[in-house]
Amino acid sequence: MSNLEQMRAELQELNLQLLDLMNQRAALSKAIGEVKRKQGTNKFDPEFERHMLNQIAEHNHGPFEDSTVQHLFKQIFKACLDLQQDSSKKLLLV
Amino acid sequence: MSNLEQMRAELQELNLQLLDLMNQRAALSKAIGEVKRKQGTNKFDPEFERHMLNQIAEHNHGPFEDSTVQHLFKQIFKACLDLQQDSSKKLLLV
Repeated sequence: MSNLEQMRAELQELNLQLLDLMNQRAALSKAIGEVKRKQGTNKFDPEFERHMLNQIAEHNHGPFEDSTVQHLFKQIFKACLDLQQDSSKKLLLV
Repeated sequence: MSNLEQMRAELQELNLQLLDLMNQRAALSKAIGEVKRKQGTNKFDPEFERHMLNQIAEHNHGPFEDSTVQHLFKQIFKACLDLQQDSSKKLLLV
């Protein structure tokens, strides 16, 4: 295996680890949405989202810039929120 | 600590693990860009990107939909490519 092939194999391994964590986060986020639904509180919490984005920037040591990781996490947050809302819609339909 | 607080703490732990993996992927991607630069090959390889996206969908067991994880990974791929290109520009400037 060439150096490039070896590196690409590592890249694919990292993809699968990222995929696993994304889905773990999605499942936890769904569970949080469920708790909030029972409590009757709003699912979207901009203050906690801002807190997480600050924490991410504080722990970021690159090579990605803070603005890049924050952009990527905003996409993940949005996807999790959409998933929470889809679950609520399904509950309303049954 | 309430149930919600506990779950939020776990969410933040997952964020930091995701951040670490994203940066590992970014560093590896930069290294791949460097190898390709020396070989004189194009950094953007749509065929390999498509292969990775297919592999991600094959390994996805939810709760995120395939289209959602593929969208998130496309953003990560783009951020990695931008980083490779920034590195090349810096090399041209020295």
